[in-house]
This record gives sequence, C-alpha cells and structure tokens, in this order.
Amino acid sequence: MRTEHDFLGELLIDDNAYYGIHTARALTNFAITGVPIHPALIEAVVTVKKAAAAVNRSLGALDSRIAEAIISACDEILSGALRDQFPVDCMQGGAGTSTNMNVNEVIANRAIELLGGKKGDYSIVHPLDHVNLHQSTNDVFPTAVRIALIRLLKPVTELFAALQTALQEKEQEFASVLKVGRTQLQDAVPVTLGQEFGAWAQAVARDRWRLYKAEERLRQVNIGGTAVGTGINAPKAYIFTVIEKLRELTGIGLARAEYMMDPTQNCDVFVEVSGLLKAAAVNLAKIANDLRLLSSGPKAGFGEITLPSVQAGSSIMPGKVNPVICESVNQAAFQIMADDTAVTLAAQAGQLELNAFLPLIAKNMFEMLDMLNHVLPIFIERCIKGIRANGDICARKLTDSFAVVTALTGYIGYDKASMVAGFCLNTGKTVREAVLELGLLDEGTLSEILRPERLTAPEMRTSKER
Amino acid sequence: MRTEHDFLGELLIDDNAYYGIHTARALTNFAITGVPIHPALIEAVVTVKKAAAAVNRSLGALDSRIAEAIISACDEILSGALRDQFPVDCMQGGAGTSTNMNVNEVIANRAIELLGGKKGDYSIVHPLDHVNLHQSTNDVFPTAVRIALIRLLKPVTELFAALQTALQEKEQEFASVLKVGRTQLQDAVPVTLGQEFGAWAQAVARDRWRLYKAEERLRQVNIGGTAVGTGINAPKAYIFTVIEKLRELTGIGLARAEYMMDPTQNCDVFVEVSGLLKAAAVNLAKIANDLRLLSSGPKAGFGEITLPSVQAGSSIMPGKVNPVICESVNQAAFQIMADDTAVTLAAQAGQLELNAFLPLIAKNMFEMLDMLNHVLPIFIERCIKGIRANGDICARKLTDSFAVVTALTGYIGYDKASMVAGFCLNTGKTVREAVLELGLLDEGTLSEILRPERLTAPEMRTSKER
Amino acid sequence: MRTEHDFLGELLIDDNAYYGIHTARALTNFAITGVPIHPALIEAVVTVKKAAAAVNRSLGALDSRIAEAIISACDEILSGALRDQFPVDCMQGGAGTSTNMNVNEVIANRAIELLGGKKGDYSIVHPLDHVNLHQSTNDVFPTAVRIALIRLLKPVTELFAALQTALQEKEQEFASVLKVGRTQLQDAVPVTLGQEFGAWAQAVARDRWRLYKAEERLRQVNIGGTAVGTGINAPKAYIFTVIEKLRELTGIGLARAEYMMDPTQNCDVFVEVSGLLKAAAVNLAKIANDLRLLSSGPKAGFGEITLPSVQAGSSIMPGKVNPVICESVNQAAFQIMADDTAVTLAAQAGQLELNAFLPLIAKNMFEMLDMLNHVLPIFIERCIKGIRANGDICARKLTDSFAVVTALTGYIGYDKASMVAGFCLNTGKTVREAVLELGLLDEGTLSEILRPERLTAPEMRTSKER
Amino acid sequence: MRTEHDFLGELLIDDNAYYGIHTARALTNFAITGVPIHPALIEAVVTVKKAAAAVNRSLGALDSRIAEAIISACDEILSGALRDQFPVDCMQGGAGTSTNMNVNEVIANRAIELLGGKKGDYSIVHPLDHVNLHQSTNDVFPTAVRIALIRLLKPVTELFAALQTALQEKEQEFASVLKVGRTQLQDAVPVTLGQEFGAWAQAVARDRWRLYKAEERLRQVNIGGTAVGTGINAPKAYIFTVIEKLRELTGIGLARAEYMMDPTQNCDVFVEVSGLLKAAAVNLAKIANDLRLLSSGPKAGFGEITLPSVQAGSSIMPGKVNPVICESVNQAAFQIMADDTAVTLAAQAGQLELNAFLPLIAKNMFEMLDMLNHVLPIFIERCIKGIRANGDICARKLTDSFAVVTALTGYIGYDKASMVAGFCLNTGKTVREAVLELGLLDEGTLSEILRPERLTAPEMRTSKER
Repeated sequence: MRTEHDFLGELLIDDNAYYGIHTARALTNFAITGVPIHPALIEAVVTVKKAAAAVNRSLGALDSRIAEAIISACDEILSGALRDQFPVDCMQGGAGTSTNMNVNEVIANRAIELLGGKKGDYSIVHPLDHVNLHQSTNDVFPTAVRIALIRLLKPVTELFAALQTALQEKEQEFASVLKVGRTQLQDAVPVTLGQEFGAWAQAVARDRWRLYKAEERLRQVNIGGTAVGTGINAPKAYIFTVIEKLRELTGIGLARAEYMMDPTQNCDVFVEVSGLLKAAAVNLAKIANDLRLLSSGPKAGFGEITLPSVQAGSSIMPGKVNPVICESVNQAAFQIMADDTAVTLAAQAGQLELNAFLPLIAKNMFEMLDMLNHVLPIFIERCIKGIRANGDICARKLTDSFAVVTALTGYIGYDKASMVAGFCLNTGKTVREAVLELGLLDEGTLSEILRPERLTAPEMRTSKER
Repeated sequence: MRTEHDFLGELLIDDNAYYGIHTARALTNFAITGVPIHPALIEAVVTVKKAAAAVNRSLGALDSRIAEAIISACDEILSGALRDQFPVDCMQGGAGTSTNMNVNEVIANRAIELLGGKKGDYSIVHPLDHVNLHQSTNDVFPTAVRIALIRLLKPVTELFAALQTALQEKEQEFASVLKVGRTQLQDAVPVTLGQEFGAWAQAVARDRWRLYKAEERLRQVNIGGTAVGTGINAPKAYIFTVIEKLRELTGIGLARAEYMMDPTQNCDVFVEVSGLLKAAAVNLAKIANDLRLLSSGPKAGFGEITLPSVQAGSSIMPGKVNPVICESVNQAAFQIMADDTAVTLAAQAGQLELNAFLPLIAKNMFEMLDMLNHVLPIFIERCIKGIRANGDICARKLTDSFAVVTALTGYIGYDKASMVAGFCLNTGKTVREAVLELGLLDEGTLSEILRPERLTAPEMRTSKER
Repeated sequence: MRTEHDFLGELLIDDNAYYGIHTARALTNFAITGVPIHPALIEAVVTVKKAAAAVNRSLGALDSRIAEAIISACDEILSGALRDQFPVDCMQGGAGTSTNMNVNEVIANRAIELLGGKKGDYSIVHPLDHVNLHQSTNDVFPTAVRIALIRLLKPVTELFAALQTALQEKEQEFASVLKVGRTQLQDAVPVTLGQEFGAWAQAVARDRWRLYKAEERLRQVNIGGTAVGTGINAPKAYIFTVIEKLRELTGIGLARAEYMMDPTQNCDVFVEVSGLLKAAAVNLAKIANDLRLLSSGPKAGFGEITLPSVQAGSSIMPGKVNPVICESVNQAAFQIMADDTAVTLAAQAGQLELNAFLPLIAKNMFEMLDMLNHVLPIFIERCIKGIRANGDICARKLTDSFAVVTALTGYIGYDKASMVAGFCLNTGKTVREAVLELGLLDEGTLSEILRPERLTAPEMRTSKER
Repeated sequence: MRTEHDFLGELLIDDNAYYGIHTARALTNFAITGVPIHPALIEAVVTVKKAAAAVNRSLGALDSRIAEAIISACDEILSGALRDQFPVDCMQGGAGTSTNMNVNEVIANRAIELLGGKKGDYSIVHPLDHVNLHQSTNDVFPTAVRIALIRLLKPVTELFAALQTALQEKEQEFASVLKVGRTQLQDAVPVTLGQEFGAWAQAVARDRWRLYKAEERLRQVNIGGTAVGTGINAPKAYIFTVIEKLRELTGIGLARAEYMMDPTQNCDVFVEVSGLLKAAAVNLAKIANDLRLLSSGPKAGFGEITLPSVQAGSSIMPGKVNPVICESVNQAAFQIMADDTAVTLAAQAGQLELNAFLPLIAKNMFEMLDMLNHVLPIFIERCIKGIRANGDICARKLTDSFAVVTALTGYIGYDKASMVAGFCLNTGKTVREAVLELGLLDEGTLSEILRPERLTAPEMRTSKER
C-alpha cells in the first residue's frame, strides 16, 4: 500500500493500482450503477491527453522526457493495456471530473514507471501539473464525449445504410407480389409487398442521412477553453495548436468552437443528436411492428410473410416460433426513446458556466449507440435477409377483399362505389361479380380498371431509382 | 376607464371589467397558450375565498357587511356568473399568483357593487386586505388545484366502473365463442372471446380502484399555511377553522396537512396521481390496440370481431369503415402519457419553499381528466357496447391453426409434440389428423384432450366472480 | 333541417350548416378535447383543395363552372369567412379523415350556393367526387399538416433570431461587468456578465439555424399519392402538376416525395423537427433558469442582475417581485418537452400503409409552435431587454471569492494553489493577501496574473464576431 | 463438444456448458446490451422451478428421484453456484422465453450430473418435460419478475425510512437556525433551516409509505396460468398448491391472481410501481437541487449550509469542492424518470394474450431499484448526515432582506406594506428602520410583530410529531 494526499487528507492506495487518491475517493462516492466508463470514452480522454502532451512539449511547456513518458503511457492504454484501471462509475457526480482524474492518475503512474520511478511519486510526473497541463475537466470531458460519440456513430450510420440495402433487395425480390394494402389496419387499395419494403427503405435512408449529418453537430469542441471556456491558464499557442493535434490523432474533422464558453455549458447539441437517434428508433419500431403484423399466424394471422426461424418460441407450446428478433428491435427502440428522455432532462438542468450532468448524457447516448451497433447486424442478417413472401396468401386475401372498389370511383362515383362495397359485404361476392351483376360497367372496362399494375403504382419508381 | 394602482405604478382598466390591475398586468405578461383558467379551478378558488370570508367573519376579523358581500359575490360566480372575467392564461408564471389575484379582484369589485360602490373603489372591499385576508397564493392555489382535480377525478372513476361493466357484459355475451389465443401475435392455445374481454375488464377494474384511492392522495391541503407553510399572518383559530368550512362547502373529505410547508413546496403527490392516470392510459391503449387488431379486415385481417360503424372511413375508398373511436382512445392515451412527462418535469423543478410551476401541472392534469371524461363515454357507448363477434371466423381460424398441439405435451412430451406441429405445417393437415396418422394417441384419448372446455379454462372463473 | 345520406344511413343537418353528414357524425364521435382544428391547418387544407380544383379544371377533369365555384369558396374561407363551420375536434380518430371531410363539405356547400343551388344538393357540387377529386385524406392531410407547420415555424425562426440579437446587445452592454463564474453552482474562475449573455446567444443561434433548416425537412409532401401513396385514381398529369400549383399558391418550396408511400406512412420527419424544437426548449429552459438564479434575491440571493418588474409577485408578501416571465418560459419549455413525447408515441405507432395518429402529432406540434410564437416576444421585450446589471454586487462577490486561485497553478502548481485556497477559506483572507503572506509570489507578478482581462478571456471573441 | 437438438435443427454445445441449445441460440439472437439477466431474476426463476418440482413430486406428477435432483440443482444455484451459466442478454425478444429456457437447461444438466448422467442426456432429466413441467414462460417469467422486484424494493423502502430519519435529525439540529425563506428564488418570509429539512422529510415519508404499499401491487402472480393464463396443461391441484409452495419458499405474501389471463397480458401494475419510483425520484431531485442551491458558494452563492467535502472538485481549480453526491443523486433521479418512459412504452405495447416486452420492463425497473439501493446509502452517509449550518450567513441574509414586511400587513395593510418594501429597496434601510422612520407603528408593537418564533411557525409541529 502507498499513501496519497489531496487537500482533503490522505488515503492508502493499493500498490498495484495505477489510479490514485482522486479515483479512490470517487469509488467510494459513486457506486451507483456498477457500469464503468465506456471504453470509447476512456480512449477519447487518453487521446486528448496525448494531444495535450505533444503540444505542450512542442511549446516547451512540458519537459520532453516527461512528455515522452506521458505519450508512451497513452499509447499503451490506447493499445488496450491497463483497462482495468478505470473503475469509476459512469454515473458520477462532478461533470466528469472523476473520469478525468482517473485518466490523469493512470497515465501519470504509468509514465512514472516508464521513467524508472515508483507509482505515487508525483514529483516525477504529476497527474494535474503535467498530464492535465493547460486542461480542465470542463474542456477535456465534453471534447472526449464528442469524440467517443462520433466514433460510435459512424458504424451506426453504416449499419443503417446496410439495412437500407437489405430492404431494397427485398423490395426488388417482392416487386411482383400483389397484396392488400392496409390503412388503419383495414383493407385498403392494393400494393405490392416490394413496395412495402421500399417505403421502409426510404425511412431508413433518411436515418442514414441524418446520422451522417449528425456527426457535424458533434465536431465543435471546446478543448482549450479550460475551466469555463475562457481559456484561463492555457496559452494562446496551445489553444490554437491542440485542436490541430487532436484532429490529426483522431482522424476526425474536429473544430474548435469559436465561443468556447458555449459548448462548456450548453448541451442542446446532444439533445439534437439524441433526437435524431430517436427518430431512427421510431422507424425501427415501425418496421419491426409491421413485420410482426405481416408475419402473424402462421395460420390465424395475416401470414403474408414468414420470418426466419431463429429459436424455439415457447417452453410450453411445441413448434411455436416467435418474431423474437423484431421484438428485440422493438425493445431497443423503446429504450432509445427512454434514453432520449434522460438526455433531455440532463441537458435542461445545466446551470450557468457548466452542465454537471454530462456524464448522464454520455451514459445514455453510449447505450443508444451500442444497442444500435449490436442489434442492427442481427436484424439485417437474421431477420430481414431471410424473409420469405407467402404469395398465395397475399393473392387470396386480395381476392377476398373488396378494396379494389376504390378504382371504380372515377367511373361510377363515390356513392355508387360505396353501394358496391356494401353489396359485397352482404353477399360475399367479389367486386367484379357485384359490378357486373349490378350492371354498372361492362366486362372489358372493368378488366382494364382492375389490372394489377394499374392498381398499384401508376407513377411510382422503386426506392432505388431515387 | 378607471385608473388602478399597484406598487409598480398605475394602469387604465375598462369600466366594465371586474378584474383589476393585477389581472391586467398578467394579461400582458402571459399570452402564451390562449387557454384560460379551467372552470373547475375558478370554482375551487372562489370556494376557498368564500370559506375564508365566512371564517374571518365568524372570528371577527372581517366586518360582517364586507364578508356578506364577498360571500354573495362568490355565490354569484359559483352559479355561473361573471365567467368571462377570468381571462388569465392557464400557463402563467408566478405559481398561480395571477389566478389568485384575478379571483380576488373580481370578487372584490362585485362585492363593492353589491355594497353600492363603484368598481375600483377598494376602500370599500379590498382584493388583498379583505378577499385575500389570511391567505396567500401559495396556500390558496395548491388547495384549489387539489379540489378541482378531485372533482374532475370522481366522474373519471365512475366511467372506469362503467367501462368495466360494459366489458364484463361482453365477457358474458362471448363466453362460448372459442378462438385462437395469440402470444407475440403468433397462434397460441385456445381462449374464448369472452375471456379476452374479461382480461381487459380486470385491468380496468384496477384502474377504477386506483383512481378511487387516488382521491385520498389529493385530500391533504395546505390552506392556512399562507406564504411558505408556516402560517404567517394567519391566526391560529382561522387555520383550524377554515379547513372545516372548506370541507363543508366542498363536500370533500379534505384534511389540513399537519406539516403545511410540505404541500406548499412538494409536488410528488401530483406525480403519483398522474402516474396512475398514465397506468390507466396504458390499459386503454392496450385495449384499443387489441380491438383494432381483432377487428382488422374485414376480409384480409383477423376479422374476429366487428366494431360498430360510426362514420365513413375514407374520402377515396368507398365503403371503408375504420376503427376511429379506438384510434381516438389511442390518441388520448398517448396524450396522457405525454402530459405525465410535463407533470414530472414541473414537479422536479420546484425550488426551496415553493414550486413555481404548479400552473403547468394543473394544466396537464386537467387535460388528462377532461379527455378521459369525454372519451370514455364515447368508447363505451359507441364502441364497446356495439361489438359483435364473428363466431364463424373465430372457429375457422382455430381449426386451421395447430395451436392445440400444446395440449398433447402431457401425453407425448414436448419433443414429439414439436414434431406434430412441424408435420402440420408441412402437410397442411390438422393436429387431429397428424396425431392419428403418426399413431401417437388413440382417437378417444385425443378427443378428450381436445375438448374445448378443457382447453380454455380449466380453473378460471369469470372476472365478475372475483 | 335538411337530410343527408352516407352509406351508413341518413342524418338531419341544420339548414345553416355548411358542413354535412360526415362532419356531423364526427362531432358525435370525437368530443374529446374541445379544441377545434388549428386555423393554420384549415387554411392549408383549403389551399390544397384550391390547387386540386385548379389543376383538375386545366386537365379537363372538372367542369369549369364547378371548378370556379370551388375555387371561389376556397378563397372566401382563406379570407376568413365561414371559420365557425369547422367544428371537428382536433384529436380525432381516422388519420384526419374528418378534417378532410369537413373541409370538402363546407367548400361543396358554399360552391353550391355560389352556383345558385341549395346546401345539401350534392348533384351540383359533390364533396367527394368534385372537391376531393383525385385526392385522399391520406395525401391531403399529411401535405396540409406540413404546410401549416412550415407557416408557423417561420416566425418562430425569426423570433429566435430576435432573441439572439437581444442577448448579444446585452453581451455588449455588460462586456466589462466582471464577476464570479460558477461551475456546479460553486464559485469558479471569473467571467464577464457579457460573456454569459454571449454563451446563451450562441445556443440560441444554433436553434435559429436548426429551425431554419427544419423547414427543408417538411417540404417533401405526398400530394398525388392518394390512398396509400401509389397514386391510385389520380392521373399522371394531375400528380405532376398539382405540386407545382401548390408551390405557387403557398409560396413554399414544396416538393413531391419521389416515393410517395413513404410520407404517407412514415412520421419520423415530425419526430426530427419536434426533437429540434425540444433542443430549443432545452436552451430556453437553461437561459430562464440561469436568469432566475442570477436575479435571485434581491438581498439574500445571487443578486447579480435585476429583471424588469412586470407585476406584483405575491398576494401576501408586499413589494415582492418574481421572475414570472422566466417562469412562463420554463413552463412553455417543459410543455414542449412533453409534447415531443406525444409526437414520438404517435409516430412509432404507425402501422403498414398509414399512420392513423397524425392528428395527435399535428395537435402537439401546433401547440409547441404557438407557444413559442407567443412567449418569445414577451421574453425578449418584457424580460431580456430590460435586464440591468448589479455591477457592485458582481464586483463584491468576486473579491470575496477565492476563485482566482486557479490562475496561480501555472506558477506555483496545483498542490500549493490548493493550500492557498484552504488558507483563504480558514482565515477569510483574500487570495492576494494569502499569496503574499505565504511568500509564494512577489506582488508584481501577482498583479499581472490577476489582471481582469487576463482572467476572463484571453482568446475569446464576442459571439457576434463569429 | 456435445450435440443438442431442437425442432429447428442441431447445434454444438461446449461440454462445460450447463446451458443447452435454446440458450445457445439466444446468445446469437440477442447480443444487444451486453447486460446479463439480473441475479435477483435468476434467483426468482430458480425458486419458481424449485417450487414447481416440489409440488409436482408431491402430486406424483414427477418422479421423486428426478424431483430431488432438480431441487438440489436449484439449491446449488440459489447458494451462488453456476452463476456464469446464465449469459443470455437481458434485453431479449420473446417475453422471457430465453431466460426461462436458460434456467431450465442449467437446472436439467446439473440435475443430470447429480443423477450420474452426462450433460445433454435429457432422457434423464428433460429441461421442458421435467424442469418446466406444468409451466410456461408466460407464467414463470411474470411471476419471477414480480418476486425479484419485491426483493429489490424492500431495501429501497428501508433506505427511504433511513433518509427520512437522517433528515429529521437535521430538522431537530437546525431547529433554531433562523433564515430567509425563498419562493420563486426571491426572498420570502422567514423559516428555520430545520423546517426546510422537515419539509423534505415529509416528502420522503410519503415515498417510504408508497413504496411499502407498492409491494402489495406486485404480489398478485399468475403462476399456474401457463401459456395464456387459462392454466392449460396444468392440473388443478398443481395450480392451487404451487402458489402456497412459492409463498413458503420466498417468504413473500404472494397470491394467485384469480383471473390469471390478466397478469399474463397486462402490465399496468409495473407502470403504477414505476410511477411511484418516479415520484420518489422527483423528491430526491428536488432535495438534491435545494441542497446544491443552499450550499452554493462558498463565497458568492447562498452559502447557508456546507456539504461534506468528499473529493477534490476540479482538475484545474485548486481547493474547489463540488456537491458531487447531490449531483449523482440528481442523475440517478433523471435516469429513473427516463426508465419510467421505457416501462410505459413497453407496457402499452402489449398485444392480446401476452406482453412480449416484459424483459424491457424488468431491465428498467431493476436499474431503478439498483440505483436507489446504491445511491441512497451514500446520500445519507456521505452527504445528509454531514451537513453543517452556516448560522451567521443565514442570520445576516435575513437581516439584509426585507421579507419580514409581510408580517406588517395585518397592521398597516398590503398597500402601505408595499410602500415600506419599496422604501427599503431604495434606501437600503431595514424594515424596522423604515417602519419607525415612516411612523407607521410604535417600537413595542413592531418588536412583537417581528419576534422570530412568531414569524416562522406559529402553528406548526415538527415533522416527527405527525
């Protein structure tokens, strides 16, 4: 055990621990969720530290030997080392201070070792005076959260693109499967099964685009703003250089906010991006709901499609197969909508120069993005791609229904067409039979009116042609 | 025009206006929603004023002539007079001050008239020194909001009782309509249509009970607590008597909170009651969803029930009838869930001795209760009561499905029963045919196993027998 | 009274009513909120009708005389006539059918009158065969909702611009008012009061930009798609022309969605825009909260600014003035966050070819926009513009605090600076006194370090310079 | 590796795995959150299995040797063994089927081992025919979720009791610390600091009571209802006995729902309990907010109390201490409010005989309860108990303010009292000075009016006396 000090007193720290007293205190203060800091966030904070050390060295503000050691320690962590040294709870008070402190301490102690010292000898490398030099939690943490979000967001965007493609392939595959459309769950005018996949693909295309653009929202960072965004304690040269270094290290088009007090305190950007993720969740929920409806049955439901069987559905009902992938998509979508509430609550509660609740925003946005990154590949591979059309059932239901009566209104008017519908409902006859029996149109005209291609999409292109 | 003063200056007031300068200022400050104060709230505030005047007179704190005039003015308003004199926006800043001021002024000016004076001559009856005597907005408004909520809640509770009854009548009516049950929208073991109505009735019975109990939550009021709940400026005798008078005038079992600072600042009780309304909305949404599913069709959907036709469903599709009543129930339910968010946001934002956002809580809870009071009678009368069962369709779908295979597991085991299900799916044969063909059971045993009564509810009573 | 028919039967309609049987049925079915259709929505639907009539006439699909009469009726309504003829409840089941029917009927009956007929004689002008020609509720309503939203959104965007300007004027006015910054409500490094207004202005600038861009999201409409987006019953020429006519009549850059089934059923665009309004609400709530904090007092709070006095604050505490405008901004913000929940719930519940809950989405988005249109001018004029700085208090608090100790870390290190802070807290001495007494720095260096301009914004520009 | 089969085919299972093919498939299907099933839920499901085995043995439905082995396996798991054998993701599709299957398989394989067999030889003990005998996921899972919730809820209730006690101890400790009350953040009539703690204690007392009662809501279970609540496949004797066994094993007053279809499909009870947890969160947020406000400073804020220092607050501002415990309470409260949204969304989406989204409800309610169980002890021990009053500051601020002017209205009227307030504001004089200078009251009367005890709580008892 070693003894460490802060201005509140001293604490015994395990000799093996790379973290120090600030982390140790945080462990006692925030044992709330049991969920540690997200790896993407650790990596982002470490990257910020590395950038700062490099810039500070080049400006002569940091001794080269110390800077080298700090950078080496950062590289080790970025390569996957020491990951068990970041035990602080993700839902911490303090606007991220404990995360920043935790990273500062681990880097410092590892750098100390690299320089031949013993952990805890902060005269060699100091967590705050060296590792945190020219920084504050209040610029490091908001900057790192944005970097981590961008990194998790990129694959999500690509997954939405993949989902779009998968849906469009089905659009093409099912282009000639004619079926009843449904509005308000009631039989409506005909569509093709392909068109239904096309409509979902359009919505997903919008998600893809929106999330692609969302990255831009997150690129404005406040690194260099230090405590409240005024840049206090940071030299001008550092402020202007560190952002360039960070852009280089991350490969992300980050930009320094010109008014750095703004991103230090305002969290509306997270609400905006969270809202876009919620819009995507709304689309996913809608698609999953529709798939569950269309595959309901197999005998007593709509039964127009069959989803891939991925597991036995019941511990009591043999042979039952459930739309479990869709159900997990639904649940992920609901969770995303709920997480958006948490983001909103945290964002609106910021006060004056800082929002102390950014850790909660980060927790929820990471959950959103992680879930999407996990559930979308499964949805695509184990559900969408394996969907089969039950063309016979689609055709039979279309024939049974009298939805095509709509096509007659241009010829016999709304009121007479209503009469035909009533006649069908009462007699069980088809629209064709009814119209001929009632002598409303001759057979040739009727056949032309009811020609499938004419009924489904006189003007529409496929979603791919857009 | 007459001139009125307050400590900010003076304002010209229309001679016909019974309200005065405080109201006039509020009109300029809060033109936000255009929605005025809810009539139930006006009545509740006026009732508080009447109670205070009566008690103050009996304690000798208020001149009898003035008190009589105030009480008469209150009675006129309670009878429906002067209702256009309360124009203040429901979403006002100030924790209800403008509502209280508005009522004080209207009562004062009407009382002045009754005493032969001219509106605005507050030497005769003063809005604050007389009408508001021993009161503060901070005890009047929270008390009045509770009274108004209780009054709107009572009929809602009765409507849930009526809904329960309507569902149970259908439970009985459809007790012998055998049909496929569905879990996760997939065909499951048989139930009766009556049982489905019974399950809904049970949920609604819980709502009825919860809302009945919710009234108790709202009965603890802080009248007498004045500005912050300490009762400053109010004599002891008044504090102990006014609650009794208020109980008498309202006929509601109100009780004075023993720690009056608590209801002055804490709004968790509203969150609790709002949460119960949300639970009721969840049940309504579930029932409406199920009804829309079961009535989907008429030809290409589930089609197991038919909802009453209440209007033409489409401007383009003749003869189409939609489940519009259910859809409006769904929308009311969604709105209630959203209003609960507003209640929560307002409640958690209270600060120190007061919650300034009680007007928002009131607005949203009034909307919730008003919607329920309006939509439930329509739901019962124009939807539930007129539902018809399509027994033939129910029977056909049950025969088609192989859900009854579950009943075999006790005889042939889960794995063989799964095999039967697969056999049915592949060959299109019924479970009965498959079992006999595969030689798994003899016909007598099989018939006993598949006897409908045995399948649906070996142990269950109807929901009414509870 | 006149008798009207539909396929459900007949109904007596008041002779003075311009609406007909479909509206009458809707009045019985949807008495839920008491809130009628928003005027902006009526106008948008009427504009769609006018465009359709004009195009149908030019294509020869509609008799010129009938078309003229329809257009004239539309123009009358657009000029403000007959507005009491749209009594249908805004929260209607049926995806907007009743709104569409209501408009069809009023236009038809007025057109009949213009052609010399009697209301109800639909052989002259038919609500569906003529007024609704080549349309369906399912393309008319979603198109009209978008048009109405754009119209209400434009002034909101301008108001955010005005708010930004007002804040920036204060930024400039208070540019030299030095004060304590606060992070997590604890004294932090110095800022200027002007900088605080600048940070709010930045957030508002983002809202302005986002809402300006949001209009683009709403421009893609599905007019011409008819029942499910396939364009059934609408001739190709009509589909391609009606959007141009609509663009001309509205002056809005509307575009036909290339895949019209998409906007007919998917509502993610509304979730997106609602999410942006929520982000704006988050900023407004934050600003209002901060203003209430900074103006807390006048004696026992922060007291750094004084808000304009706009009304007496208490019915019991004389002379009390409350931040009522800010409180109403807070409440509007909370309501917007809640309305976003309603939009989300409705959007995710769409099924297959249609979202039946679009009326609920419209209701809530109209409420959001109306509130912003009403509350922002008041916030700007009656609050922001009149804010006064209490420079003396700001200066005194800054001197009292030891927040400037941060500026020392670059010179004496974090640990010694912590010691100085502790020394100040225990002895009540100022940072300057402590440093000199402890002999940590000489007076000249210290004075340079603590120079105000150096402390507040070494690198920052004003928010206007962006 | 061993090979296992289900009706979809076969799969290789690691020889060391106690789970089988159903679990293996679920692992592929639901890699969404990475969060496994909550230990409390595993224990509850295992307890249900144990109860069922015991009852089935006593009824002769299960061979004694098999039953014993199953019970022994259950006991091992309940003692903490095999916990790494439940890897299924908590956010699974399928209404809990995979959790139930996972438990069935682990118990079966362990029982097989105990009987001398090899894992996977289900001819010895079958996961479904033996372990799941007379059960369905649809009664096991909802029952187990309720048991787990009750177990997590009990300590939460006790923690609210402890919080109440801690607050009441401070109420007593600070009973004589006179200070300014604040309504709408503006100086209001005096209170004692003790009274403020008393008002919080009252709110918390309500939470304690509500959560205590909430347990009752969760006690109605549907075990015995099997697939859809009709009890299909379960003998009457089993249905009536298993609940008794379960009551005995859990020590919880569980009761069989008389209408078992109801809890199988309706989730309003979870919404109700979640709503109560949200009400508690609202109170916690309010208290944490108030504590942060009152402790703001230390120099430039309210500064009326000092919270315990638990860690250094800033990586850049030396000596800064932040209210981090309160901030984590705030964040937990926000997360609870958000989780309530997830519960609501899942609950309203139930369809017909089942709610497929119960796993999501469980996930969120477990998170709520876990957070409360973790954060409340820290809040009590590391924050509330260590709070110190700054009596001097409280006294000074009270003297500075002119809030006591309210006490004069009964003597000089509201209008003159307003004048006094204005006089104080303009001249900087105290109320006492102003009144005497203006000659409004004599000194003796004035002193009596302004006597502290008279000002703060003429009628109030402490919160403990309730």
